[in-house]
Amino acid sequence: MKFCVDTDKNNSWYIGTKDYNSKMINKIETIMFQGNGYVGMRGVTEEPQLNEKRDMFVSGTFDAFPSEVTELPNLPDLLNMVFQVDGETLNLKDGQVKGYHKYLNMKNGELTREFTWIINHKQINFKFTRFVSMDNYHLLASKVTISADKDINLKIKSGIDGQQSNSGTQHLMEGSKRFYEGKFIQLTEKSQQSKIEFVFNSMHKLFVNEVLLNDKPYIKMGRRQIFENYDVDLAAGQIFQIVKYSNIFTSIDTDVKDDDLAEASVNCLKKSSWANYHELLQKSTRAWEKNIWKKNLVEIQSDDITPQVAINFARYQLAANTPHSPNMNIGAKGLTGEGYKGHTFWDTEIFMLPYFIFTMPKIARNLLEYRYLGLEGAHKKAIRNGYRGAEFPWEAANPSDGETAPLWGSADIVTGEPMKVWSGFIEQHITGDVVYAVMEYLNATNDRDFAKKMGYEIILDAARFWVSRLEYDQDHERYEITNVIGPDEYKEHADNNAYTNYLAHWCIQKAIQVVNILEEDHPDLYVTLDKKLDLAESYNDWISHVNKIYLPQPNEKGVIPQDDKYLAKRKIDVTKYQINDQISEIFKDYNLDQVNDLQVTKQADVMLLINLFDDYFDKDVKLANWNYYEPKTTHESSLSMPPHSMIANELGLDDQAYKFYRWTCETDMGVHVGKSVQGMHLASCGGIWSMTVQGFGGVRISNGKLRIDPHLPKAWSSLKYQICWHGSIVKVSITHDEMEVEVVGDGIEFINNGQEYQVPDNSKIEVDDFVPEKVKG
Amino acid sequence: MKFCVDTDKNNSWYIGTKDYNSKMINKIETIMFQGNGYVGMRGVTEEPQLNEKRDMFVSGTFDAFPSEVTELPNLPDLLNMVFQVDGETLNLKDGQVKGYHKYLNMKNGELTREFTWIINHKQINFKFTRFVSMDNYHLLASKVTISADKDINLKIKSGIDGQQSNSGTQHLMEGSKRFYEGKFIQLTEKSQQSKIEFVFNSMHKLFVNEVLLNDKPYIKMGRRQIFENYDVDLAAGQIFQIVKYSNIFTSIDTDVKDDDLAEASVNCLKKSSWANYHELLQKSTRAWEKNIWKKNLVEIQSDDITPQVAINFARYQLAANTPHSPNMNIGAKGLTGEGYKGHTFWDTEIFMLPYFIFTMPKIARNLLEYRYLGLEGAHKKAIRNGYRGAEFPWEAANPSDGETAPLWGSADIVTGEPMKVWSGFIEQHITGDVVYAVMEYLNATNDRDFAKKMGYEIILDAARFWVSRLEYDQDHERYEITNVIGPDEYKEHADNNAYTNYLAHWCIQKAIQVVNILEEDHPDLYVTLDKKLDLAESYNDWISHVNKIYLPQPNEKGVIPQDDKYLAKRKIDVTKYQINDQISEIFKDYNLDQVNDLQVTKQADVMLLINLFDDYFDKDVKLANWNYYEPKTTHESSLSMPPHSMIANELGLDDQAYKFYRWTCETDMGVHVGKSVQGMHLASCGGIWSMTVQGFGGVRISNGKLRIDPHLPKAWSSLKYQICWHGSIVKVSITHDEMEVEVVGDGIEFINNGQEYQVPDNSKIEVDDFVPEKVKG
Repeated sequence: MKFCVDTDKNNSWYIGTKDYNSKMINKIETIMFQGNGYVGMRGVTEEPQLNEKRDMFVSGTFDAFPSEVTELPNLPDLLNMVFQVDGETLNLKDGQVKGYHKYLNMKNGELTREFTWIINHKQINFKFTRFVSMDNYHLLASKVTISADKDINLKIKSGIDGQQSNSGTQHLMEGSKRFYEGKFIQLTEKSQQSKIEFVFNSMHKLFVNEVLLNDKPYIKMGRRQIFENYDVDLAAGQIFQIVKYSNIFTSIDTDVKDDDLAEASVNCLKKSSWANYHELLQKSTRAWEKNIWKKNLVEIQSDDITPQVAINFARYQLAANTPHSPNMNIGAKGLTGEGYKGHTFWDTEIFMLPYFIFTMPKIARNLLEYRYLGLEGAHKKAIRNGYRGAEFPWEAANPSDGETAPLWGSADIVTGEPMKVWSGFIEQHITGDVVYAVMEYLNATNDRDFAKKMGYEIILDAARFWVSRLEYDQDHERYEITNVIGPDEYKEHADNNAYTNYLAHWCIQKAIQVVNILEEDHPDLYVTLDKKLDLAESYNDWISHVNKIYLPQPNEKGVIPQDDKYLAKRKIDVTKYQINDQISEIFKDYNLDQVNDLQVTKQADVMLLINLFDDYFDKDVKLANWNYYEPKTTHESSLSMPPHSMIANELGLDDQAYKFYRWTCETDMGVHVGKSVQGMHLASCGGIWSMTVQGFGGVRISNGKLRIDPHLPKAWSSLKYQICWHGSIVKVSITHDEMEVEVVGDGIEFINNGQEYQVPDNSKIEVDDFVPEKVKG
Repeated sequence: MKFCVDTDKNNSWYIGTKDYNSKMINKIETIMFQGNGYVGMRGVTEEPQLNEKRDMFVSGTFDAFPSEVTELPNLPDLLNMVFQVDGETLNLKDGQVKGYHKYLNMKNGELTREFTWIINHKQINFKFTRFVSMDNYHLLASKVTISADKDINLKIKSGIDGQQSNSGTQHLMEGSKRFYEGKFIQLTEKSQQSKIEFVFNSMHKLFVNEVLLNDKPYIKMGRRQIFENYDVDLAAGQIFQIVKYSNIFTSIDTDVKDDDLAEASVNCLKKSSWANYHELLQKSTRAWEKNIWKKNLVEIQSDDITPQVAINFARYQLAANTPHSPNMNIGAKGLTGEGYKGHTFWDTEIFMLPYFIFTMPKIARNLLEYRYLGLEGAHKKAIRNGYRGAEFPWEAANPSDGETAPLWGSADIVTGEPMKVWSGFIEQHITGDVVYAVMEYLNATNDRDFAKKMGYEIILDAARFWVSRLEYDQDHERYEITNVIGPDEYKEHADNNAYTNYLAHWCIQKAIQVVNILEEDHPDLYVTLDKKLDLAESYNDWISHVNKIYLPQPNEKGVIPQDDKYLAKRKIDVTKYQINDQISEIFKDYNLDQVNDLQVTKQADVMLLINLFDDYFDKDVKLANWNYYEPKTTHESSLSMPPHSMIANELGLDDQAYKFYRWTCETDMGVHVGKSVQGMHLASCGGIWSMTVQGFGGVRISNGKLRIDPHLPKAWSSLKYQICWHGSIVKVSITHDEMEVEVVGDGIEFINNGQEYQVPDNSKIEVDDFVPEKVKG
C-alpha cells in the first residue's frame, strides 16, 4: 500500500515522516492526531506554521454561532511554544534543518518530533514529545529537550492561546485569566449559545542536565491569551528540558462535581505535576493496553507490514475519537478536524458500530444509548416534517437537538444561487440504519437489559416513523417511499430507492416481532411502551402495511433498480472519476442536476443493501448487481469501498476485494494531498476493521447466529482476531487452510460453510476440512 | 532621524524597504497602511504570511461580541491572492528572492511590491500595485504583473476570504455567497450585535501582453469564502497582468440609498470595472490632491529629507484614517490595527484636532459634531456615576453608546487577580478636553453656526457635569476633585490632579461666558437650552462654585504639584526607562501599586497643562516645572512628546525640542520592532503637525487671537505652511530671520512677538524686525 508516511518493518505501531517541508502539512496533522475520546488535538507543531490547522476539541461541547448550525468549538491552544535561540525565532523555514523526524507511536499515542536546527553557525538539537493521557482524560503533557553545540540564549514563550477559531468563527466568550502561585496559568471561557464553561490550565517545569530550575516565569497576557516566558542561558552540551503540563475541564464533564471548576482544575494540575513526564506516559500506556489493545486483537501475517499498520491505525483513531458519555457520539471526522462540524451521521451505525459491537460492546451500547437519548430530537424532526414516531437526524450533535444539518450549501455552479441542502430533510434511511445497528448489537451481545431499557423502544418508535412515511400508490396497490436521497447522494428526490424501501420494510418487520416478544415475555414493559407509543394502533398499522411495501426486485438480468428512474438514465464512462488518489472531479464536468440524470452512483447503494442483507439475495443476483453498479460508481465517498471489498471477497473477486481494501486503507494515510485536510474519515477506520474481520475474516450475523466464513487475501499467510459473542471472548485464527476458534467464557455456537459448530466453555476447536469461501462459490 | 524604512532624498512622498525577511513584518504592515477614511487596510502581502495581521476595517461599523466591549470588526479580506508557479505556491520563504522592493507613494496611497522569485531554476518577476480609492470610497483596485524567463504554468486563487477575526473574535454572521455573470463574486455578512449588513464584491480581468483574456474562473466556495481560480500557461517573456476590482458597502453607508445593497453594489463594481487600473488610480490621485494636499501645505527646507517625509507621513495617515461622517471619529489607532478596538480617546481633541482646525475646519467640525451626537451617551455615563450633565466617555465608539472602555484588564503581576480598568470611571479630564477643542475650533473658525447648533450646548452640558463632580472640602473651604486619573496614568486615584482641576475650572468659566453671550445675543437659543439644561439653576451653581475650585499653585520652587501627594513620593532614577527605541520596562521592575508610590510620570501632565494654558504661567514657572517633571517622565505614552517639544522650543531648549520632535517622528516609523504592531499612533501624527506648525511654526491662539511666534530648528533653513483663520487661508513663510504672511480671502490680524499685525484682504506682509522667539527669552 502507498502511504504518505513511512512505516517500519519491525514495528507496526509506527508511522513517521522525515519530510518537514511537505505540502502534506494538514494531512500529517490529521493522521498524527492525538486524543482520548474526551479531548482531541491535531498533530500540529509547537511553533506556529503557515497554513496549519490548529484544532483542539472536547467531545460534545457543541455551540452554535448565530445563524449557523451547531459545531464543536475549536478550543484555546495548549500546545503552543515559541522558541528563540539568540533572538532568532524557531521556524524550520529559516536556517537549515538536519535529521528531521516526526513519528507517532500508535500503541500509546505519543507523538515525537526531532531535528537539528542550524542557525547562525550553531547547531541546536530539538526533541519534542507529547501525549494526551488515556489514564486521566483531562491531562496533556509535553516535553521538549534542547541542546546545542555552542552556548546559546534560549527564550521560551508557552501558555494558553485562546485566539483560535473555527475557520474564523469564535464560539467562546472570554472569561478570566489568572495565575496561581506564580506558575499555574489559567484561562476560562464560556460558549456563546450553549453556555458551557471551559477551564484551561498550564504549568511548566524546566531542567538543565536533569536538575530542576527555579526560574519564575514572566507572565504576559493578551486578548484570550496567557503565556509564561522563560529566559535561559545554556552552555554548549548542556541538556535543557521543559515539561508542560496542561489540563482541560468543562461544565458538562460528568466525572467532576465541583462547584468551583477553576479552583478544582488547578488543584488537579498541581497533583498531576508531582509526577514526571515519563511516569504520566507510563500510566497512559497501561490504560491504552488495558482499555483498548486487550480487547480488540487483530494480527495479520504478511510479508508486507502495511496491512497490520492499517488496522492498528484504524483502531488507534477509533479509540482516540470515541467519547465516553452516551450524550455524545463519534463525529464523521471525530475530533480530528473541523470537517462536518463534529456531527454524527449514519457513519457510526453502519460503518463503525460493527467494530465496537464485536470488540467493545460497552462502548457500542453507549453509542446506541445516544440514539435513545436522541428520541426527543427525532420526534421533533418527525413532527416538523409531518410524520409520526422517531425520525432520526441526518446530522446529529447534542442528542436532544434533532436535525443539525445546514439548510443551505454553496451556490450552484451554473445559476450562482445558493443550493438547498436536502440531506437533513429527505436522506431518511438513517432511521433504518439506527435500527439495523440496534439489532446487530442485540444479536451479538444478547444484552436484554439494553433491549428492555432502550433497544425495543428505538425499534418501535422508528417503525412508527416509517409507517407514517409510506405513501399509497393506487395504481400499483402498494406503499411507496418517494422523494428521498438514498446512499447515492448524486440522486436527490429519488422515488423508491431500493436501500431505503428494504430498510423501512425490515424495520417494520422488526417492530412487529418486538411487539410479539413484549406481549409474551414482558407484559409490564408492553404496557409502559403502549402508553408512550400507542402500540396497539401502531401494531395494526404495521400489520396492514408491511406486506404492501414495494421492494424493488431484481429485473430479468438480476439487477435491482436503485430507484424508479435510475435504469433509464443516460450512461457515461465513469472510469476517469474512479481514481483513488485524486479528488473525483465529476462536478467539474457536470452540475448536480446533470449528474442526477446519469447512471452514475457516488457510493455503494444497491451494493450496500446487498452487503447488509446478504441473506436476501443469492450469489447470481449479487454478481449481476456487482457487474452492473460497480462500474457506474465513482466511489467519491469513502463509505463506498468497504462494502464493495466485502462483497467482492464473498464473490471470489479477490483482486477487487483487495483493491477496495487497499483504497480504504489509503483514504487517510494515502498520498492524496487534499484528502483528510479537514479531518479523518472515521467510517474508513471502521471499514478497515470490517473488511479485515468481517470481510476477509468472515464474521457475519445470519438470522441472529454467528457465522464465520473467512477467505484470506493471497498476500496474507494468516489472520488472528478476537471478538465478543454473547459475553464470551472468541479468538479466531485463520490461515489459507486452517481455522481455529477458541472461547474464553461460556461456550458458543457458530456456522462455517453452512455447518454449525459448538465450542464448549473455555476451550478451542479446529474447523474440520476448513474450506475458504471462494472455493465454495 | 532613524527610520525603519528607507527614504528618498529626491522624493519626500516615498517610504520603502528592500528587506523582505524582516522581523518588522507587522510594523511595515502598519506604516504602509492604506485607507480613505471609509475603509482602511494594513499593508499585508497578497499571499498569506506567518504572523501577519491581516486587518481591514470600515469606519464606524462597531459590533460587540457577547461579554466584550464594542470594536471594529476585522472584515473579510479582499487583498488575498495565492499564486502557484508550476505547482509551487509563492512564498518568499521558499526559493530565492532578488530585487525585493516594497514602497508606498504617500502622495496617492499606492503601494507597490516587486521582486524576482527564483524557484526550480526559473526566474519569475512579480510586481504588485494597489490602492484604495480616494475618489470612490468603496473601491479597491490591485494589479499584479508577472513575467518569467522560461515558460511557466500559473495558477491563481483570488477572492473574498471571510475567515478573518479580531484576534480570534468573529463579529460577522455569514450571509450569502453568490456569483453573477460568471465573474462577479459576492459575500454578504451581518454583524452579530449591531446588525450592520456588509456586502463585498470582487472581479478580475486578466491580460497577456495587454490583450484581455476571456478565461472563465473556476469558482470555489468555503466557509465564509468565495474564490475565483485561474489557470494560465505563460510563455517566456510574455507579460501577464491580473487586475482585481473589489468594493465594499454597508447598511450604515450614508451615500447609498438602495434597498437591495447586494445588487446595487455589484452594479457599482460593474461600472468601476469599465475603467482600467491606471484610470482609476488617476482619479484617486486627483482626489488626494484636491481634498488633502491643496489644503494643508507644509514645506520644510533642510539638508535632511526626513522631516518632510515625517510631515507627509503624518498627513497621509491622518487623511487615510479620518472618517467622513459625524457619526464616527478617529480611533487612537484609526483603521490601522486592532489596538484600542477602533475607539476614540482624547487623542482626537488634544492631539489631532489642532491639525484639522487649522487646515480642514470642515473635518474638524465633523469630529466635534461627533461629540455633540455623543451627548446622549455622555448623559448615560454621568447618571450611572451619580453626576449630572455630560460626562464624555473615556473610550468612545458609536456616539450614543457612552462609555465603551473595558471593565477588566490583565491580572495583577503579584496577586494573579484580574485588575479593574479605572480609566472609564475616573479618567475624567476627557470632558474638559472636548470643551477645550470646541473653544479652539470656535476661536480659529469663528463658526457661529456650529456654536449655536452644537458648540454652546457641549460647553454648557460639560460644565453641568463638572459642577456636579466637585467635592467641598470643609477644612480648606474649597471645591476639590479627588480620586481621578490625570494624564499621568501611573497615578490611579489621585486627588486634585492639577490638569483636571484647571480644566474643570476653565470649563465652568467658559460656560458662564456662554450664558452671558446667549442672554445678550441669542435669547431664543437661551430659552431652548434653558429647557434642556436648566440654565438658570446651572448658572447659579457655576457662579457660586467657580471661584472656590482649588487650583494647585506653583510652590516656592515654582513647581505646580501634579496632585496632592505626588511631591512627597519617593524619587527614583527614571533615565533607564526613557529610551525611545525600546519599550519602557518600568512594569518589569514595579507593579502599578508600586509605581503609584513613586515620583514617576508616564507622560506630559503638568507639562500638558502648561502647554494648553500657556498664558497662565510665566517662563520661570514653565522652566521650573520642565526641570522638575521632565526628568521624572518615562514618556511611555506617545502623547508625552509633542507637548514637551513645544514647551522646550518656547523655552529655547532647542536640543530637547528637537529630540522630542524626532522621537515623535520615530514613534511609528522608527526602528522599534514592538511599537505599531497593533496599529499607528494617530495622536503622534497630529503631534508631528503640531510640533512643526504650532511648535517650530509658532501658531497659537491667545485670548481668542492668532499668535504666530516661530522658532525654527537649526537644521531647517525654512518652513512654509498654510492654515485657515476665520475662513481665510493664511500662508506663512519663515526662515531664521524672515517671516512673511500672506492671506487669501478676507484680511486677518495676528500677533508676533507681542506686536499686532494686520494683513489686508488677499495680500502679503513681511514682519518687520522679525525676532525668533528664543532670542526674546
